[in-house]
This record gives sequence, C-alpha cells and structure tokens, in this order.
Amino acid sequence: MKINPAYKLLVVSTSTIYGSEFLEYIKHDFVEFIQSDELLFIPFARPSGISFDTYTAKVQEALTDKGVTVMGLHCFANMKKAIQDAKAIFIGGGNTFLLLKTLYELDLVQQLRVQIAKGIPYVGTSAGSNLTGLTIGTTNDMPIVYPPSFDALGFLPFNINPHYLDPDPKSTHRGETRETRIKEFHQLNTQPVIGLREGSWLHVNDGKKQLQGDLAALLFRPGLEPVELAPGLINF
Amino acid sequence: MKINPAYKLLVVSTSTIYGSEFLEYIKHDFVEFIQSDELLFIPFARPSGISFDTYTAKVQEALTDKGVTVMGLHCFANMKKAIQDAKAIFIGGGNTFLLLKTLYELDLVQQLRVQIAKGIPYVGTSAGSNLTGLTIGTTNDMPIVYPPSFDALGFLPFNINPHYLDPDPKSTHRGETRETRIKEFHQLNTQPVIGLREGSWLHVNDGKKQLQGDLAALLFRPGLEPVELAPGLINF
Repeated sequence: MKINPAYKLLVVSTSTIYGSEFLEYIKHDFVEFIQSDELLFIPFARPSGISFDTYTAKVQEALTDKGVTVMGLHCFANMKKAIQDAKAIFIGGGNTFLLLKTLYELDLVQQLRVQIAKGIPYVGTSAGSNLTGLTIGTTNDMPIVYPPSFDALGFLPFNINPHYLDPDPKSTHRGETRETRIKEFHQLNTQPVIGLREGSWLHVNDGKKQLQGDLAALLFRPGLEPVELAPGLINF
Repeated sequence: MKINPAYKLLVVSTSTIYGSEFLEYIKHDFVEFIQSDELLFIPFARPSGISFDTYTAKVQEALTDKGVTVMGLHCFANMKKAIQDAKAIFIGGGNTFLLLKTLYELDLVQQLRVQIAKGIPYVGTSAGSNLTGLTIGTTNDMPIVYPPSFDALGFLPFNINPHYLDPDPKSTHRGETRETRIKEFHQLNTQPVIGLREGSWLHVNDGKKQLQGDLAALLFRPGLEPVELAPGLINF
C-alpha cells in the first residue's frame, strides 16, 4: 500500500516497556529520528487524567539528557501557528477518544495533516500512533468522550493497534481477545490493521515502512488469517 | 440513586463463564426472571461477527430445555411492533458500538425505552448490559463503527463496565488497566460506574438493585477510591 514519500513517521506501540522508565527504551531512536533539538509535544490524550503541564514536563524530563527542548502545544495562544512552526511533533499516549476530540474541537486536524505532508517528523506513541492510521477504530481505549468523527490523521493507509497483546491460553476471562476484536473490526471495515507489540515501532520514511524493535508485528486483513511480520522492511 | 420502580432488569456481566456453556450458569435465574415462555432476542451486537440467524439459534439452543421460544428481532418486518408486543426482551453481547448504532439506525431506541418502562423484563449480557447504563462510555469494545451518539438506553442512572477485570500484579503489559480506564472516564464524566466481574449480575426490580452471583462488584465514583460491593441489596 502506498505511503506519501514525504512522510517521516515513528509509530510506536508504547511509550514505556516493562521494567524501564518513560520513553527510556526508544529515546535514542526518537532523538535520532526527529533531527532537531526542539520538539512540539501534544499532551491532549492525558493518560490517567494528568494535566497538560504535568505530561509535558514528563516528556521534557525524559529528553533533557538528549538536549531536546520540549514545548507543550497547550502553551501557545495560536496553536495552528505553533504547528506550522514546529521542527518536529510528538503526540503521546493516553485516551484516543479524548485526544481526537480535542484536536477536532481546536480545529487542528487539517493543520497537522498539512505540516506532516511537508516532511516534518512525527512521533506517536500509543494513542498518538492510533492517530497515524485511517481511523481510531482499532484503539484499545474506552470511549470516555464522543468525538465528532472516528477519522484519524490518516498518514497511513491502514490502522494501528498499539499495545498488541497475544491471547493468553491460560486465561479464564471470557471477554473478547484482541484478535477477536480486530476480526470483528474486519467484518465491517476493509483496511489492514497492524498489531504492534510493546517494544515495536514502525519507522516510515521515503514511502517505506520499517518494523523496528526486537519483536514481530501482526498484520490483520479481512478474511485472511493474521500474518507475523518480522522486523525489517515490510511490504503489503 | 433512584431507579424507575417499573423497571425489571437483569444486567449480566457475561453470557458465558469459564468452563461452562453459553448462558449455562445464568439460565435458571434468567428464565425465572423473564416469567414468560416467549423471548424477543436482539442479536445486533454480533459477537465475532456471527450472523443474526446464527446468534438467535444459539440463544434458542441454550433455552430450549427451559421451554422458552426465542424470536430474533431481525425476523420481523415491523420491528417496533415486535418490541411493543414482546413479553420479555434479551439483548446479547458482542460489539457495543455496532449494537447501539444499529438500534439508532433502525430508530428502536425510544421504543425500547417505552416498553421497558412498562415493566417488560429486560435481560442484557455484556454489550446488552452496557446499554442499560447512561452511556456506552465504559464499554471494553473496539469502536469498529461510529454510532450517532454514545447515549445508551439509560435505564440506570449510572454506567456498567461488564467483564470487569482486576489488575494483574504479575502482568508486564503496559497498556492501561481497567481501573485506570475507568478513572480516566471519571476525569470527564460524573456518573458512577459498576464494574461487574464475570459471574455477577444486577437484578433490578421495584426500584431496588440486588447484586447476584458469588462475587463482589466494584463501585467507581469520581474522586473516590473504588468500593467493593458484596452480593445482596446495594445502595449508593
């Protein structure tokens, strides 16, 4: 599937892996990718309901030792201009519905699309990765607010399922597995879904998609069995 | 919180518990509750994408030995009239977004509200239980389709989280726990949420709520720590 060759994306399953600090495992690749010491951070997903300021400070703390200055988008009176002027943009995880609703309400969706199409590097983790797909239809989050649409930023011609979790054969829980949920999605939607396990990310550049990290990812398509994709260049 | 004393509701966490057949564990209480040998079944949530016919046949199979005749709502040319004429109504689990969207599209939401307010027994499992609350904002399901609203049937002045799952202290997964998700809900919503563990259900009658099954349920309210509710009459 074709991706606009101008896009520079890092589509990350999770900000944090087990036994490691916030952004720790991805920091090196993150900073190499953005190629800037200035980063515009969009904190609207508010994980655990934390404030925009607290969330922005957390990102700054993680990236200080790499010499990156982090600015929270909420601090700008003119947010559209802040996006226009950004050297690199990071949307962090939290609640995908809240994140998308806020972007629509502030009328920032189109501005983000324009800017990323100019080749400004974009990093998303978790909810921020859901936004790179066509829709938020494969988020794991609770629908705590009602966005005006489920259409996401649409940089990728498929959907992302972050924090992908394999079925646990020992589980006694009867709620749907992640795989079942994605299969239900494909009863009603045609776009492929990439299930990114924690510790994996997609690096998109020059129209190519690299799966990075140590783990395989899962490719789901309607009517087909899921396929494991090994790290490296992926094609579908 | 006050509940319309006319309502007769069985709000069930899951249709199926571990090691048991579909509806097996709840069948006795279900049939005693509906007090009818005729049941109108609403199959719109389509678990795993199964067809309306297959889902309805599955319910019929489970209830045949209890002498209950099951009719699928999709078989009626005039669905509003089928709801008006129903002696008891059951909405089964599956995808909550798909279920609610279908009910809105067929313009059946108001008819269901009118009928249940007349005292017609209503059983919901999983997605069908989400619908008894104020909104579907605490469903666990993926947003595979976009409903015109998240407002649910609103029989209860609170929300339901079915298949409630306790945090696993041994988990290495960094996705949000159920508790974290509900806390995020309460950053932006005020209504209480009842987390029903699998094997639990609420029996609502004469304005009173009984928690049934062997397990405690969890009561979440904004700004307060969750409270365990023991089986029996519950008040909040």
